[in-house]
Amino acid sequence: MATVKLISYEEADARVRAVYDDIREVRGTDFINNFWLALANDPANLERVWSEIKLVMMTPGELDSLTKELIYIAVSVANSCSYCAHSHTAAARAKGMSDTQYGELLSVIALAGKTNSLANAMQVPVDHAFQVT
Amino acid sequence: MATVKLISYEEADARVRAVYDDIREVRGTDFINNFWLALANDPANLERVWSEIKLVMMTPGELDSLTKELIYIAVSVANSCSYCAHSHTAAARAKGMSDTQYGELLSVIALAGKTNSLANAMQVPVDHAFQVT
Amino acid sequence: MATVKLISYEEADARVRAVYDDIREVRGTDFINNFWLALANDPANLERVWSEIKLVMMTPGELDSLTKELIYIAVSVANSCSYCAHSHTAAARAKGMSDTQYGELLSVIALAGKTNSLANAMQVPVDHAFQVT
Amino acid sequence: MATVKLISYEEADARVRAVYDDIREVRGTDFINNFWLALANDPANLERVWSEIKLVMMTPGELDSLTKELIYIAVSVANSCSYCAHSHTAAARAKGMSDTQYGELLSVIALAGKTNSLANAMQVPVDHAFQVT
Amino acid sequence: MATVKLISYEEADARVRAVYDDIREVRGTDFINNFWLALANDPANLERVWSEIKLVMMTPGELDSLTKELIYIAVSVANSCSYCAHSHTAAARAKGMSDTQYGELLSVIALAGKTNSLANAMQVPVDHAFQVT
Amino acid sequence: MATVKLISYEEADARVRAVYDDIREVRGTDFINNFWLALANDPANLERVWSEIKLVMMTPGELDSLTKELIYIAVSVANSCSYCAHSHTAAARAKGMSDTQYGELLSVIALAGKTNSLANAMQVPVDHAFQVT
Repeated sequence: MATVKLISYEEADARVRAVYDDIREVRGTDFINNFWLALANDPANLERVWSEIKLVMMTPGELDSLTKELIYIAVSVANSCSYCAHSHTAAARAKGMSDTQYGELLSVIALAGKTNSLANAMQVPVDHAFQVT
Repeated sequence: MATVKLISYEEADARVRAVYDDIREVRGTDFINNFWLALANDPANLERVWSEIKLVMMTPGELDSLTKELIYIAVSVANSCSYCAHSHTAAARAKGMSDTQYGELLSVIALAGKTNSLANAMQVPVDHAFQVT
Repeated sequence: MATVKLISYEEADARVRAVYDDIREVRGTDFINNFWLALANDPANLERVWSEIKLVMMTPGELDSLTKELIYIAVSVANSCSYCAHSHTAAARAKGMSDTQYGELLSVIALAGKTNSLANAMQVPVDHAFQVT
Repeated sequence: MATVKLISYEEADARVRAVYDDIREVRGTDFINNFWLALANDPANLERVWSEIKLVMMTPGELDSLTKELIYIAVSVANSCSYCAHSHTAAARAKGMSDTQYGELLSVIALAGKTNSLANAMQVPVDHAFQVT
Repeated sequence: MATVKLISYEEADARVRAVYDDIREVRGTDFINNFWLALANDPANLERVWSEIKLVMMTPGELDSLTKELIYIAVSVANSCSYCAHSHTAAARAKGMSDTQYGELLSVIALAGKTNSLANAMQVPVDHAFQVT
Repeated sequence: MATVKLISYEEADARVRAVYDDIREVRGTDFINNFWLALANDPANLERVWSEIKLVMMTPGELDSLTKELIYIAVSVANSCSYCAHSHTAAARAKGMSDTQYGELLSVIALAGKTNSLANAMQVPVDHAFQVT
């Protein structure tokens, strides 16, 4: 499936290849996953999204790289993005996520899915103590 | 707003008060937020959800307590749960989340919201490398 | 709040009033809730949605009227529709939903929110036994 | 697909087998669906989720077992959980859901999906009559 | 996959065939996509949904036909409907959507997915200037 | 409500004021809506999001400016973003959206919400004709 053609390295023009080359170099692997092959149909968007991934996910900050992947998985699951759940779970494992950590992540996601439902069902009013403004 | 009555400590029966007392003791504060006052309409569910929160969020494991709150926020935002976004952001701050960490969290959530949309729009097929089974 | 004007009976033209009159007669009350006052900005859509509500929710079938309201609440909560959670919970109570039934409804919605998250996170493959085609 | 290994009865340790045995006994069939085989990667979570399913879905209450499955399907569809839509539709049929009931369920889910969209688009303010607190 | 049987023209009864014939005539092609073959399990719903598609999507109005398809894609992506993303992207292409237009559509959807996340995370209060009522 | 402080022009530092000034100049109005006042807590993210808005929404392309706003509204409604539904409906009106166009937009969003639910409920398999890859 897919609503667009996947553009292989061989089929790509110079602008797309430049991004593919950078993905390979930054990640230290020849493998380029399908998300980029699909996004390459719009080279300008490919460049922007890859730049943003590098900026947000790879720039050292106060949250470490694995924590960011766990957050990414959590959003992807809640948004029912099948591709993203697969790719970011693989990415988290590559960054050292243990089976125990994954189990804890799933338990938090599951609990949040449950209590989100309860709060939305009962339409609980937000406590004043939680409002900054 | 709310689809149920909020049950104050004074109005609560002994079974509900026992949970309220435990919430106060475990958290070290007299404040009980509205989620529990709403859930108290079904004392058995109140007991189960509070037990699960303690088990999943407070039992020491491989993910620290703040990381779990960040994941909780991420799910709550993706599920558009207004109450949960407020309460868990406050909880994360109480556990020491810095402004910089919050900024990084928002950037990851925003980027995931963006790439989830792109992957779902293009219906990118899952790479074999990402499939465990 | 609202992105449209709420059109009161006094302000409504004949076409809208005809729907308002029918809502009042079918429901046996003078009260017309805000959803209809908002929808009245597009009289053709107002007519179509009210007709569909009568057809789907009020035509006798194999599912009774209260069961349909419980299903409506479940969808509304999962879709984070604040207005709909409020209005259909009130509707279910008007149709006789007991506090115990509401508690059971919330427990099922919460459990589904939890296991949906787990199945989506683990991307569990669908068993052959569950596939009709 | 799947982000985790599916653990068969043969591969399972004693703790997991105890849950598998209980699933088989309670359901009166040797078939164990993939959700449990996936969840078995975290035996403690497997035990908790199975216990909660039994408590919420199988304990006699005021809502009958089929009604609970219809609610479960409704939530699963709104959450775009492919696995859950398949498994709970099969479960509802096994509990006697007729084709007519399924058709009525789909019509209510579809109508709710439509009116949720309209209420969220117009941001209809909640009527005072619908607010309990 | 599917939770229902797909009903081919040959298997269909006269009531269903009448809709299938109309779909073919209106669209000028013999191809009937799976959505209709699935919906045919409930002939009354099949008739209603097809009528609504013709009314909403094909009646000349102020929004042209392609714009409506772009809006349809946007909703389908946000709702994580795999079938709908595929079918409406194909429909938009059949109505003349260019690669550039599709690229711009994806960029808007992606940006909205991102800023929706930010606004929901920060729970930004609605400006008075944006409130009609 | 809000989980962050809203930063007024007076309170803003030079970096934030530079963005506020650009928003005012590009839009030709002194009014700066709350989304930006909230985002200003992270000046780098404020700059990035504003740049992306200008690039995606204001750069002339094949989709006109109003069409992009309609798509933005559609995504925001499906994501249950209250702030976004309000702000982008106001933006669309400012760009000339007529009441008739808004009515047609709502009808398409509502129909998509309905058929998305049906396709997800029946888990309709994607036709080969709709798959590009």
